[in-house]
Amino acid sequence: MVKNTKVNAAIIIIGNEILSGRTQDTNTGTVALWLNSIGVRVNEVRVIPDIESTIIDTVNHLRKVNNYVFTTGGIGPTHDDITAQSISRAFELKYEIHKEAFKILEAYYKPGEFNEGRQKMVWMPSNASLILNPTSGAPGFNVENVFCLPGVPSILKSMLGGLKNNIVGGKPILSHTISLRTVESEIAKSLTDVQNNNKEIEIGSYPFFQAGKLGVSIIIRSEDQNKIDLCSEEIFKFIIKKKN
Amino acid sequence: MVKNTKVNAAIIIIGNEILSGRTQDTNTGTVALWLNSIGVRVNEVRVIPDIESTIIDTVNHLRKVNNYVFTTGGIGPTHDDITAQSISRAFELKYEIHKEAFKILEAYYKPGEFNEGRQKMVWMPSNASLILNPTSGAPGFNVENVFCLPGVPSILKSMLGGLKNNIVGGKPILSHTISLRTVESEIAKSLTDVQNNNKEIEIGSYPFFQAGKLGVSIIIRSEDQNKIDLCSEEIFKFIIKKKN
Repeated sequence: MVKNTKVNAAIIIIGNEILSGRTQDTNTGTVALWLNSIGVRVNEVRVIPDIESTIIDTVNHLRKVNNYVFTTGGIGPTHDDITAQSISRAFELKYEIHKEAFKILEAYYKPGEFNEGRQKMVWMPSNASLILNPTSGAPGFNVENVFCLPGVPSILKSMLGGLKNNIVGGKPILSHTISLRTVESEIAKSLTDVQNNNKEIEIGSYPFFQAGKLGVSIIIRSEDQNKIDLCSEEIFKFIIKKKN
Repeated sequence: MVKNTKVNAAIIIIGNEILSGRTQDTNTGTVALWLNSIGVRVNEVRVIPDIESTIIDTVNHLRKVNNYVFTTGGIGPTHDDITAQSISRAFELKYEIHKEAFKILEAYYKPGEFNEGRQKMVWMPSNASLILNPTSGAPGFNVENVFCLPGVPSILKSMLGGLKNNIVGGKPILSHTISLRTVESEIAKSLTDVQNNNKEIEIGSYPFFQAGKLGVSIIIRSEDQNKIDLCSEEIFKFIIKKKN
């Protein structure tokens, strides 16, 4: 059913507030976890400023080398929200009022409340497909393989569900975590051997501090549960050996 | 004293665990806030996987277009820690045992504990300068304008202080926040006018939800406090006007 097992994406976080360190990005994690669950692997994330030429160049590069591109941020009503006009330029499309989006927001707001500021949010690249927003009305949009979402994390989260049918993923990426009370240097050599025996599996090693104790989480990732299981067994073998 | 007022940097977050969404990156914020305080503006952040060719290409591109580059992650003892070897290749330097780092770790660990896994952490690009680590011994390193820090947030944080003398920043970037109980669309037009009157100032508008109420934070950023003050005044003027 699924032809391509390697489907990948890039995420572009648009916003000076992340680059200044003032705001902590959480959208990367939200989008990445969701993409993983539908079989899309995130290859790269870029955080870029609210500068039109930078947005255009970044989108035009990344949409050619990834199956999908997701942008977050810059689709609100203020002067620093320039994602829609930048995407229009990137695709050489007219930047114009989207009739369907206009109707949605006209119905969403009370009479008289659909003011000039809010009307800015219906300006989009010509013929863009809408991404519906069940939280606050104003939709995101999609042009070819580029999907533009808002920056507010709760709103973004609420919009992902409606996107599922637009994305054709590969096999879901499965993972298994083994957490040990040890330090990385104690298991480094054995883990390298396991990785060398299982080159097609992604094995990550991450130190953690929990309740004042040191530990390491070993994460095994693959599209194939059998391979994960075999790899886990090899890891358990060297752990037991070390214990004895 | 300070010649260049526009000093910029890129941050490269190296690690599959961020791209998979499993781990929330917080190092971007830590490094960005610290850089801002010493007058360095972050132009771009890239999150990339533990793939040598990707690390090499990304570092070699970003170090040419930024005054400074900071990497985080991939300098531990396990097989997936490949930052030091990748940086060596990027600069076409030998990847070898760093004598000073070896001495530091030999003294740091109890006799017999400086095992093969830990010894991996003293392999670095030839003649790299060390970045001392007051938390867990193993140093980071610096080649030309590239500074390589660990991924564990608490360790990274503890190492920034010792770096200050290696970075020549411009004027510190100042900011002022005005928080309003309103929605963006109500102030969008007036704020656009203020931005147009103050083109050299960065004005950002960020909606927030706090204690069940909607609000907007307006952030004004500049190296010039006077310009920030003038801009704030213009904003207060339109707020008062709207109230009456």
